[in-house]
Amino acid sequence: MTLLEQIQHKINNKTKPLGALGKLEEVALQIALIQETLTPNLVKPHIIVFAASHGIANEGVSAFPSEVTFQMVLNFLNGGAAINVFTKQNDIELTLVDAGVDHDFEPNKKLIDAKINHGTKSFLTQSAMTEDECQLAIEKGKEIVKNIVKTGCNVIGFGEMGIGNTSSAAVLMSKLLAIPIEDCVGKGTGVNPDQYQNKITILQKAISNHAEVSTDAIQVLQTFGGFEIAMMCGAFLAAAEEKMVLMIDGFIASAAFLCAFKLNPEIKNFAVFCHQSEEKGHLLLLSHLNVKPLLNLDMRLGEGTGCAVAYPLLKSAVAFLNEMASFESAGVSDK
Amino acid sequence: MTLLEQIQHKINNKTKPLGALGKLEEVALQIALIQETLTPNLVKPHIIVFAASHGIANEGVSAFPSEVTFQMVLNFLNGGAAINVFTKQNDIELTLVDAGVDHDFEPNKKLIDAKINHGTKSFLTQSAMTEDECQLAIEKGKEIVKNIVKTGCNVIGFGEMGIGNTSSAAVLMSKLLAIPIEDCVGKGTGVNPDQYQNKITILQKAISNHAEVSTDAIQVLQTFGGFEIAMMCGAFLAAAEEKMVLMIDGFIASAAFLCAFKLNPEIKNFAVFCHQSEEKGHLLLLSHLNVKPLLNLDMRLGEGTGCAVAYPLLKSAVAFLNEMASFESAGVSDK
Repeated sequence: MTLLEQIQHKINNKTKPLGALGKLEEVALQIALIQETLTPNLVKPHIIVFAASHGIANEGVSAFPSEVTFQMVLNFLNGGAAINVFTKQNDIELTLVDAGVDHDFEPNKKLIDAKINHGTKSFLTQSAMTEDECQLAIEKGKEIVKNIVKTGCNVIGFGEMGIGNTSSAAVLMSKLLAIPIEDCVGKGTGVNPDQYQNKITILQKAISNHAEVSTDAIQVLQTFGGFEIAMMCGAFLAAAEEKMVLMIDGFIASAAFLCAFKLNPEIKNFAVFCHQSEEKGHLLLLSHLNVKPLLNLDMRLGEGTGCAVAYPLLKSAVAFLNEMASFESAGVSDK
Repeated sequence: MTLLEQIQHKINNKTKPLGALGKLEEVALQIALIQETLTPNLVKPHIIVFAASHGIANEGVSAFPSEVTFQMVLNFLNGGAAINVFTKQNDIELTLVDAGVDHDFEPNKKLIDAKINHGTKSFLTQSAMTEDECQLAIEKGKEIVKNIVKTGCNVIGFGEMGIGNTSSAAVLMSKLLAIPIEDCVGKGTGVNPDQYQNKITILQKAISNHAEVSTDAIQVLQTFGGFEIAMMCGAFLAAAEEKMVLMIDGFIASAAFLCAFKLNPEIKNFAVFCHQSEEKGHLLLLSHLNVKPLLNLDMRLGEGTGCAVAYPLLKSAVAFLNEMASFESAGVSDK
């Protein structure tokens, strides 16, 4: 038997009707395959939140002012945000990264300084980053993950904070999947109908202002991305290389994943999609990747919160595979 | 402000876009209302699994033989079933109840002996229980919950084991909601297409053989129910009376809930629906109750497994309400 057949056999012989644990069975199979074992385990779960400021936020695409990005980083550092609460609840290590926030933070051992610049340029008229900045962001993301691997962690999720970043993610999605921008744009942190129309108009202009940009993932990322998105892209690539279990959060994280996937389609094997966001483009993005996430709780917060609240389900998947009795060992009649 | 307004105000002022935690916000509001406080907590979570044998199982309605019911009780006692694994993972107390299994168990301190009889009669031709048996089962369910309340527990879920009980649940649903039986019948533990047709035919006959039975919940329960279902019905009623948070599992648990709901519609205020089962009738039953469960993991196992894997989400709901910073306390700009 191949390893896949052995794992499936083990799942099928647990004391339950065939397939009765649904998606937990799929996740158990996937994690066992990633770890190449019949007895997988999840060690030192970790979520990294990358924060960055966006030039596009100054074009009126967001419901919240741009300074909320650095204010929320301070909130993360003080333990007051949703991701703090959920990682604490589920015993997940949390690391915060300044990927390019437009603010000078006091040195803080809880915050990794990976600042590429004080925010991106507005991609309405300019390229969001230089080629060097984009490359550096990707490399920093890889480096951060490789340092976390050294702690023994084998399951990792990425979150983000960056007012304006649903605009960036929507354009990445539109360009990389050749989907009209209006199908990729949602309400973000909560724009009203007029602001929503304006957001679409601005992003249409931005795309037409960069008509020369191809569908090459790096070029698209450089032109329309954010520092946190580019860093997550690098982080995904490195984490898959290290054969970690990747937890994929909501719309922004999925857009970063899409960039990484275009660079290396193999990473999908390592990805557990955690939550379907309420943000409009996410469902369409997920369906293009042909995946269905574990949760659909109408959340649209980012920060890695979808990963954090879904993590107990990954633990359930691994636990039933390791701990449930088989029909034979329990003396239960099979059908 | 009313308590509801105060709780909603507290939720809305957390450092997140309005409504961005989706269903977790609804659950937080509900639990705070149940406990009549702005700072709810979940204490000593508990799942009770009621097991019973079903006369109808001998009519060929199930993929598994009837003895699997007692074999699975032994598996529960030995810690090898899915519910053992998931309750252990999530620090949920597990109590097992012999509600009427057709087997004489050795005395075991992990198993509450509430045996009403050695299984129900086949409701194809007879009433499943006598009037006294049905009443006794309901009373036992109440008594068991009232004993658990004394431990300090304020959040409880109910699971079941009983080969043949999807047949019982389907008829309860059909009678109490006036839905054709064929829309209520699913594959249970996994019947094949021929067995499935046969299951429908048998249940149609059973219903027509008891044409005199009204839509009174107790009468329907007595005629077509199972001891574990009647006991769960009583347990739901008592738990709501004690203002506990009720976790509702899959198809069978929801059918038992439906019986309790017909007796006291107020109990819905206390109910958090945990999982939408793959079992065919469940979605329709839930839509008649006008509820949407937290999870949809394509599970169809019963045992309370939907409650056990959803419980961390209830904890997340309570945790964000208690622990997240407000815009004001964190110094974050509101929009």
